[in-house]
Amino acid sequence: MVNKIDSRIQIAEARRIQRLLATCDRDERDAMLLAIAKQLEHDAQLLFAANQIDVDAATRDQLPIPLRKRLVFDSQKLEASCIQIREVAVLDDPLRIVAERRVLDEGLLLQRISVPIGVIGMVFESRPDALIQIVCLCLKSGNAIVLKGGREALATNRALIDSIRRALMPFAAGSGWIVHLESREDVNAMLVMDDLIDLMIPRGSNEFVRHIMDSTRIPVLGHADGLCAIYVDSKVDLEMAVSVITDSKCQYPAVCNAVETLLIHEDIASRLLPDVKKSLDRYSVVIHGDEKVSKIIGCIAATSKDWDTEYLNYEIAIKVVSSIDEAIDHITMHGSGHTDCILTKDEAMATRFLTAIDSADVFWNCSTRFSDGYRYGLGAEVGISTQKIHARGPVGLSGLTTSKWLLTGQGHIVATYSGENAKPFIHKNVPVKGIMR
Amino acid sequence: MVNKIDSRIQIAEARRIQRLLATCDRDERDAMLLAIAKQLEHDAQLLFAANQIDVDAATRDQLPIPLRKRLVFDSQKLEASCIQIREVAVLDDPLRIVAERRVLDEGLLLQRISVPIGVIGMVFESRPDALIQIVCLCLKSGNAIVLKGGREALATNRALIDSIRRALMPFAAGSGWIVHLESREDVNAMLVMDDLIDLMIPRGSNEFVRHIMDSTRIPVLGHADGLCAIYVDSKVDLEMAVSVITDSKCQYPAVCNAVETLLIHEDIASRLLPDVKKSLDRYSVVIHGDEKVSKIIGCIAATSKDWDTEYLNYEIAIKVVSSIDEAIDHITMHGSGHTDCILTKDEAMATRFLTAIDSADVFWNCSTRFSDGYRYGLGAEVGISTQKIHARGPVGLSGLTTSKWLLTGQGHIVATYSGENAKPFIHKNVPVKGIMR
Repeated sequence: MVNKIDSRIQIAEARRIQRLLATCDRDERDAMLLAIAKQLEHDAQLLFAANQIDVDAATRDQLPIPLRKRLVFDSQKLEASCIQIREVAVLDDPLRIVAERRVLDEGLLLQRISVPIGVIGMVFESRPDALIQIVCLCLKSGNAIVLKGGREALATNRALIDSIRRALMPFAAGSGWIVHLESREDVNAMLVMDDLIDLMIPRGSNEFVRHIMDSTRIPVLGHADGLCAIYVDSKVDLEMAVSVITDSKCQYPAVCNAVETLLIHEDIASRLLPDVKKSLDRYSVVIHGDEKVSKIIGCIAATSKDWDTEYLNYEIAIKVVSSIDEAIDHITMHGSGHTDCILTKDEAMATRFLTAIDSADVFWNCSTRFSDGYRYGLGAEVGISTQKIHARGPVGLSGLTTSKWLLTGQGHIVATYSGENAKPFIHKNVPVKGIMR
Repeated sequence: MVNKIDSRIQIAEARRIQRLLATCDRDERDAMLLAIAKQLEHDAQLLFAANQIDVDAATRDQLPIPLRKRLVFDSQKLEASCIQIREVAVLDDPLRIVAERRVLDEGLLLQRISVPIGVIGMVFESRPDALIQIVCLCLKSGNAIVLKGGREALATNRALIDSIRRALMPFAAGSGWIVHLESREDVNAMLVMDDLIDLMIPRGSNEFVRHIMDSTRIPVLGHADGLCAIYVDSKVDLEMAVSVITDSKCQYPAVCNAVETLLIHEDIASRLLPDVKKSLDRYSVVIHGDEKVSKIIGCIAATSKDWDTEYLNYEIAIKVVSSIDEAIDHITMHGSGHTDCILTKDEAMATRFLTAIDSADVFWNCSTRFSDGYRYGLGAEVGISTQKIHARGPVGLSGLTTSKWLLTGQGHIVATYSGENAKPFIHKNVPVKGIMR
């Protein structure tokens, strides 16, 4: 067990070691990643045995079935994790990318480069494979990581951390940049360490993420709700609309990018709704419809609460609207700024929707379920941000970096560029070559 | 006067109108900027008369001289403001810049574009020209702005806002995206409106910025301290070092990018220090030196407090160090992550310093005073951020933007890419063409 004082010392030390990790070149960091994959495979039986302890306890304590399922770490999960680690290793280095390069004056060169954020605090749920993913993303991006996993996965998480530490022993940066906290009190202790932790990334329920946001001065990266909407415009391919709506609702309804609200233009409602109902009936989707909807198909009468409900289930709210403006207003008022989609053949309407809707992800003629780091091609995903500051939408490695300005001169002083005979600046942008070594 | 309930209604309305501003193309926004400059010039006598009321009151109330100086809004300040507005108008559009473009699969195109943040809350000091700058930067970047200026500048601020509103009357977006608050209670009201305000930018003392950070759930962009250091390595051009140190300390000592701590390698100390003292003596700089410094030049004995003091005055702390590592450790422990500089002829040492120091601005052979949005070529400056999240260092227009993911398909559904016969994604990056219309 780690107590409050110990955890502070450990995190301060991780912060120190992070500076070393930040100076490792990509080959070193990638070698560390590959060593982790190899060690986890080597320690497979140890890991499965530790996981059995957690699974047995969860069964004995009669924890909910979905939680017990997420808790399992078997050979399939191990294999998937190791594939992902090796994929992260071959991704482009997110560090030292030159974002801007400008000659301020002769011999005075300004560059903005990407650097690690520093120390990331992560509190996450029961899935042990999430631990592996998080540690590896932080390693690739040169960040220290303070982890607090679910109590029900403690034996597995300990075994995973032990294995990772063994893998990192031969490397100069070692594993001191990983801090594994085990108690609930440690979470509260983390939240006041705004001098040591640069960013908190909570993964869990909406209530949990909001609780973290309310309890700390540390910036928090995380999404709260995912109340996604689809608006079907009057000019639309009916078959396509039914297919996209069904996929958005039923392909995996328990997640934040599943559609919850369907808005249909009145000119198309009577032709579209029967087909939508037929398709959703195959998944026994419960439909909450407004008055106009209920005149076309059988449904439960929607109440005002339905427009603000994230069902996360086989359930959907449907409303008939008289114009694209009504749809935009509805989404602006009730949406959560996650993912919203328009289905239309009319490019002008699509452009209007894409411009007017202020959500992290705005789609045209495709399923809301696409808003995801893996599908976006970001490699692994840290999470999906519905905040507007720093990173928005699916967050990959670049969300774990910040930038630093480097200015190199030859004795240049500001007095030269001030006062009556001030020399003017050149301010000439120079093409960016990529990675700075 | 605006009361609590009124201010909430006004800000909610500004948030609504911001969506309109966000869809204006750059020509419209630039025309609005030019109209503001023209109107301010037209209203010059009204503005000066209003300013005279504030200046007279400040004189009568015997406010501090520096504050009274900052309060003055005369023809020179007006001219400078109008030049700056016209410069902002010709800057590149910060909106709809395509940052990423990727084909996920045939016909399924992902783009990440820059968009306004939304509603910016700004609380600022007595300088009336700051109001003009802030309003124009928000206009250029498509953001609504909620302003609370200093009480002592109220008559001037009211006249400026009136003039700006007159200028914007002929335009579709009008001026409802500007909210001008006048009372101290309004600031507290703003701080709880995390559902309406997306980002707070306080401009003022360190204490004031920290107070804002501690009092709101809204993200805050701002710098606290500017405790900048210069490290002089053993291999250095002595004349250049004296010149850069003098400029960094004396060119304008009251600001956050002036140097406060000087670290000198022991091999060069006895040769460099007498020249440094001679140069700083011309400005009557008070020197706090450690024991080794006091053996070479006359100085006040430094106490441990000096290494953590931002003098903002003609005063400096000097320490002799035995290695670059000692200098890096000192800066890491005592610095504020604003601007730090190494003076050396040795490129390897410079690279080491630039990599190891985790500050917003890290310099080699030039004055710390260069860390500034105007000198960096960012156009006008919103402020200098010492935070790591979102924007770091001098913040220009891009710091007032966030991004949005647009995905356009032809009925693509996620089911196609899932399960046993999952189709693989293409994930092919496409060259970015620039602005998206």
